[in-house]
Amino acid sequence: MSMDIEFYFDFSSPYGYLASCQIDDLALRYGRGVSWRPMMLGIAMKQTGSQPLVHIPLKGDYSRHDLARTARQLDIPFVIPEQFPIMALAASRAFYWIDDEDHERSSNFAKAAFRSFFGEGRDISQPAAIADIAEPLGVDREALLRAITDPVVKGRLKTETDTAVERGVFGSPFIFVDGEPFWGADRISDVGRWLETGGW
Amino acid sequence: MSMDIEFYFDFSSPYGYLASCQIDDLALRYGRGVSWRPMMLGIAMKQTGSQPLVHIPLKGDYSRHDLARTARQLDIPFVIPEQFPIMALAASRAFYWIDDEDHERSSNFAKAAFRSFFGEGRDISQPAAIADIAEPLGVDREALLRAITDPVVKGRLKTETDTAVERGVFGSPFIFVDGEPFWGADRISDVGRWLETGGW
Repeated sequence: MSMDIEFYFDFSSPYGYLASCQIDDLALRYGRGVSWRPMMLGIAMKQTGSQPLVHIPLKGDYSRHDLARTARQLDIPFVIPEQFPIMALAASRAFYWIDDEDHERSSNFAKAAFRSFFGEGRDISQPAAIADIAEPLGVDREALLRAITDPVVKGRLKTETDTAVERGVFGSPFIFVDGEPFWGADRISDVGRWLETGGW
Repeated sequence: MSMDIEFYFDFSSPYGYLASCQIDDLALRYGRGVSWRPMMLGIAMKQTGSQPLVHIPLKGDYSRHDLARTARQLDIPFVIPEQFPIMALAASRAFYWIDDEDHERSSNFAKAAFRSFFGEGRDISQPAAIADIAEPLGVDREALLRAITDPVVKGRLKTETDTAVERGVFGSPFIFVDGEPFWGADRISDVGRWLETGGW
């Protein structure tokens, strides 16, 4: 059986959102699954000396323009939320806690959280907002709120983030296909070619 | 008559090189010319707080891998030169001096300089190397060497760079199609789509 595509992202990454709208369909086309892997991009940015895209002079303005343009091209709803960037700790911890029980539910949760944030502009930084997103997917609200502050779940996100950085992940989205790394939403078509050809 | 595509790059930029191998053919396909515009990326990087790609932890390693992979895909000869990155002052000044007389010769010079540097790994930081590249294209060697240290030519490169930064150029390659900005060699296909459709 073929390996799942590994899809690393930060819930606060707009290019991560654009990729999140495409990755499952792309994988399905080549008979693959997707391992969704949220991480805290800020930890990687400490190594690269980078900062959130939209805060960077010149690059920030270009990114806003490019994000809106790319979303139009893909026909995906997109806004820069009022509260942005955020520390997406609650969403990321919730993801791994849900993921341990049910992969399909966790990826549905990830897509719903991204859509709420970048599709509708809602603030998803707080645990209550995350519970609002997870509850309709069949997640126990109170148990989820407890999980978000559980030291074990916190540690899990830290470990996942450390592993990502050790593997060379420095941006979002960051995709591995059979170990081959691809950085950026604009590499989705390369990921497709790699899946189709097995590499070049 | 349609506007030329504006193609900004730094001669020390490997992704600029990959784009330089494709931009003329792409433009021709849509009946466009290309205005080649070398600039000193270091000036823009002062604004964005960035540094040469290959010096950045994690991102540098990924870039080396991605550059070689992309060159393979495009079937373009590619090496990371021993002397790299360089300050490409001599090449950039030479370009504008040649360009004032003959656009075709200047773009041929730009392609030859890029090929010498990233295709063959030669050091193109020194004026003598630039003269070696330009001479076979019909450029007067002694006049070129004088031009490289001419305050007027130096000023010209500075002005072109300042204009680029004012227009929002922060990376290489950076392409404008009828004013629409595209950053990165991985956006060449988007540039093609924009040329084909007139935008979206």
